[in-house]
Amino acid sequence: MNKKISVIGGDLRQIKAAACLKENGFEVLLTGFDEDKIYDKSLALENDIHKSIEFADILVFPLPMAYNETHINTPLYQGEYYVADTLKLIKKNELLLAGMISPKFQTLFNVYGIYAIDYYQRDEIQILNAVPTAEGAIEIAMRELPITLHSSRALVIGYGRIGKILAKMLDGIGAKVTASARKCADLASISANSYEAIHTKDIKESISDFDVIFNTVPSCVLDRQTLEQVRSDSVIIDLASKPGGVDFEAAKELGLNVIWALSLPGKVAPITAGKIITDTILNIIGELGV
Amino acid sequence: MNKKISVIGGDLRQIKAAACLKENGFEVLLTGFDEDKIYDKSLALENDIHKSIEFADILVFPLPMAYNETHINTPLYQGEYYVADTLKLIKKNELLLAGMISPKFQTLFNVYGIYAIDYYQRDEIQILNAVPTAEGAIEIAMRELPITLHSSRALVIGYGRIGKILAKMLDGIGAKVTASARKCADLASISANSYEAIHTKDIKESISDFDVIFNTVPSCVLDRQTLEQVRSDSVIIDLASKPGGVDFEAAKELGLNVIWALSLPGKVAPITAGKIITDTILNIIGELGV
Amino acid sequence: MNKKISVIGGDLRQIKAAACLKENGFEVLLTGFDEDKIYDKSLALENDIHKSIEFADILVFPLPMAYNETHINTPLYQGEYYVADTLKLIKKNELLLAGMISPKFQTLFNVYGIYAIDYYQRDEIQILNAVPTAEGAIEIAMRELPITLHSSRALVIGYGRIGKILAKMLDGIGAKVTASARKCADLASISANSYEAIHTKDIKESISDFDVIFNTVPSCVLDRQTLEQVRSDSVIIDLASKPGGVDFEAAKELGLNVIWALSLPGKVAPITAGKIITDTILNIIGELGV
Amino acid sequence: MNKKISVIGGDLRQIKAAACLKENGFEVLLTGFDEDKIYDKSLALENDIHKSIEFADILVFPLPMAYNETHINTPLYQGEYYVADTLKLIKKNELLLAGMISPKFQTLFNVYGIYAIDYYQRDEIQILNAVPTAEGAIEIAMRELPITLHSSRALVIGYGRIGKILAKMLDGIGAKVTASARKCADLASISANSYEAIHTKDIKESISDFDVIFNTVPSCVLDRQTLEQVRSDSVIIDLASKPGGVDFEAAKELGLNVIWALSLPGKVAPITAGKIITDTILNIIGELGV
Repeated sequence: MNKKISVIGGDLRQIKAAACLKENGFEVLLTGFDEDKIYDKSLALENDIHKSIEFADILVFPLPMAYNETHINTPLYQGEYYVADTLKLIKKNELLLAGMISPKFQTLFNVYGIYAIDYYQRDEIQILNAVPTAEGAIEIAMRELPITLHSSRALVIGYGRIGKILAKMLDGIGAKVTASARKCADLASISANSYEAIHTKDIKESISDFDVIFNTVPSCVLDRQTLEQVRSDSVIIDLASKPGGVDFEAAKELGLNVIWALSLPGKVAPITAGKIITDTILNIIGELGV
Repeated sequence: MNKKISVIGGDLRQIKAAACLKENGFEVLLTGFDEDKIYDKSLALENDIHKSIEFADILVFPLPMAYNETHINTPLYQGEYYVADTLKLIKKNELLLAGMISPKFQTLFNVYGIYAIDYYQRDEIQILNAVPTAEGAIEIAMRELPITLHSSRALVIGYGRIGKILAKMLDGIGAKVTASARKCADLASISANSYEAIHTKDIKESISDFDVIFNTVPSCVLDRQTLEQVRSDSVIIDLASKPGGVDFEAAKELGLNVIWALSLPGKVAPITAGKIITDTILNIIGELGV
Repeated sequence: MNKKISVIGGDLRQIKAAACLKENGFEVLLTGFDEDKIYDKSLALENDIHKSIEFADILVFPLPMAYNETHINTPLYQGEYYVADTLKLIKKNELLLAGMISPKFQTLFNVYGIYAIDYYQRDEIQILNAVPTAEGAIEIAMRELPITLHSSRALVIGYGRIGKILAKMLDGIGAKVTASARKCADLASISANSYEAIHTKDIKESISDFDVIFNTVPSCVLDRQTLEQVRSDSVIIDLASKPGGVDFEAAKELGLNVIWALSLPGKVAPITAGKIITDTILNIIGELGV
Repeated sequence: MNKKISVIGGDLRQIKAAACLKENGFEVLLTGFDEDKIYDKSLALENDIHKSIEFADILVFPLPMAYNETHINTPLYQGEYYVADTLKLIKKNELLLAGMISPKFQTLFNVYGIYAIDYYQRDEIQILNAVPTAEGAIEIAMRELPITLHSSRALVIGYGRIGKILAKMLDGIGAKVTASARKCADLASISANSYEAIHTKDIKESISDFDVIFNTVPSCVLDRQTLEQVRSDSVIIDLASKPGGVDFEAAKELGLNVIWALSLPGKVAPITAGKIITDTILNIIGELGV
């Protein structure tokens, strides 16, 4: 394997991804970074995006790929790149990998005949990202609570990827974990993992028992009526992506401590998050056989 | 809820199920048991199946429902019931619940207009049964190995329902757990749960490292070439349903200790297994609103 | 039980202790707090220490009891109390409970014939305080590291009360835990708990393997020679009481990230720490039969 | 290190110990074994005990050392050795290691000027043996109970070496663990490890809650009055050495299922137990600097 990869834009995660890809035997070029922001001085930098695209067999764009639906997401770079300009440079047979490709850009890729894969759609990145998300949530809970998580009563709403790992870690610290779900199969899985199981529709009845409440469900499960039952010394940490799972207005009126924590992997563990992106990219490349 | 249920045939699991259903407020009749086999003397017994079917709103048949594709499975009864005879007695609007309904019987049910549900097809029974299956496998491993599972190197092939719980329990006892899978998402899940992950296609290379090997995959992953690498002091426990995951002939020739352990829940923890059947039946009844 | 207790001085922990003691059926008076600092408005406040001492059968002083070896430790009070003045007021048969009684004060207690017990010397407070200490250490590690603790390599130096709980929690989060000790029995205990065990005298050889290093030993185990082997991206968290376990000067010269984290229970989980003080006090009172 | 060791008598554990000592660079001779009982054919056998003692710098006797206070414990040998005869052969400067040296033999060693160390008195062997003891107890519980340990309510009486590991493993399998102790410090330790804690003197009140009861305390904690409260479908596993912790006569009259499980390490995991003996012997040799 002696492929050439340009890593274009992004934050510390993409620098780590570039370093990992290099360790895996690829020739790697970084583009879209100010030199003093690159912690690994052995990485080659080329901020002329024409040369960078010319150089590579594979282009790795960040997560998310763009901001304002116009520019490549380059928070560590004083310059800027228009996505539209960039696309014209991409060669046939060049593979484009990016995270959270918007429908607009997907259409553009189709128009230009660019072969693009959204690595954020892969199951493994979602599963692996659940780890830093859960850890970040636990760090927030530890910071906010005047009690230990150990021996506390913790509710995890939703038993998907994040709920599973979060419940496991909370249990590992010594919290008394209850998890909620709606499907019989998920409720069975909660019991089989030795947590208390309750149906999500019933959380209002018991929510005053909990010292800390983590929501992972992206719909308004913590509505006003439910929030009215939450104790004032409890902490609510909402991990659900937009629109979130909490009636924030009601929570504010009730004086509740609600923290809406989004995009935790890149914030709390960028090096781990960069490694996860790399692993996902390597899986994609491996499957394509490029 | 004041429904009438006849529990017809089966082993200790169905007696437990009858007792649990009674606790849940149903009127329950047992059919197909010798009186001295029933540990709970408060349960009503009626071995005349005509009366039993006449009595009930819901009929609960065992897991598996029949043997020889002809008779109801009644291991604790000296008499016998032909399935074909039984079907004619079933009333319209009577709900039939059974485990492992064969295609032949499903066809018969359709012919007779019987509304039948195979409770063994439900996700929750599969998930919950993984617990006694895993415990039974661990008990066998403890019995067979001259070393402790603690500190042993254990391989779990396949990371489905059983693989997940088995890996968790082995880790809980202190084994060094490696799990194998084929999908990237499953391999990510193994890593996220802190076990060593290997691709199932690569197990041959490292299989000599393991003191105990649990297979959960129902296809021949432990073929002759792989078995040739297994250490003679290792133990292989095959939990895969027919045809199993081991080339048993090769294993015998190689003098390996292979145990094919099927239907563990009913064998190692019949009371728990009976409770699982009950929970599943209650879910079905709850969803139907009967 | 209808004893009267004055809780004199201290921080949020003592307010929680006062509230818990009240819940346990004692008549409780708080002394040495500004009114607006008391979160539980149902607690009686009496800042005239003469009256407070007159009132009580049992006096509870804070942890630590005094500052500057002269004044009672009253961080939530604008006034002040000289310890020497206070002692003269204490009645015969009045039980005095305090944390970290200095030799000077113990001598004074003897002179005045005061029956004093240092609750911080009790085993159970040390064991229970290990929990918030370990959680606080984990919170710091999560905050400082750009990687997840999950999958990280963590070294816990010393396998005493804090080391044991810290190792367990780190394992519960998914870290790869190595613990060090000097005694054969402790090394055996580390292995029996499924962590990697190394002798504390050998940590220099492997210390570069670790992403995070927690020290619990109150002697200079992390000397200059050992620190020279620590990776620059590792984090060292020193939990050892004075003089600590790190050559801080050398660490500074080497540019290492060292955090000396003292008195964590009161800082990270004051409500839990207050409950622990209460439980310890209740044990003492129970054993004395007062 | 090129010392010579004779391993004289014992069962599979001592054969494993001989093999491990050989791996550690010692010259090893086995004595007191029928040839067909030795699974490792590379080990040298010399059943003439004169030659064996003549050969060695260190003599390793089994655990227990003797039976009937007269003969060396040689269950895998058709011949026999009188201890008294053996002692006369031992050279000055020869180190004797044995397990469970009786007072009578210790006196004899003193008379003959033999330097003997009882390796079973070492803390690390007791701690490490707690692992196979706990696993053996769990295997018995799994075999005896018609329910899974997972989700069962388990009581561990006594929180010493065995209690600690047993509680941890039961928790690791998913049991709901309560542990009892008498000291405040032990009760604190139970809570810090997230189990339910009860005082041993109070077990009678709640003992009917438990599906399985493990006793580790070598005094009669399960007396008649307490046993009268135990449910008939519960299982009691007594791990306490003589005289045990159960009023066996009362238990029999009450029809309770009590299993007195002694010396589990050698029975359930002889290879692990042999390794533990080896590790202990190596520690002794290391400390002596022989």
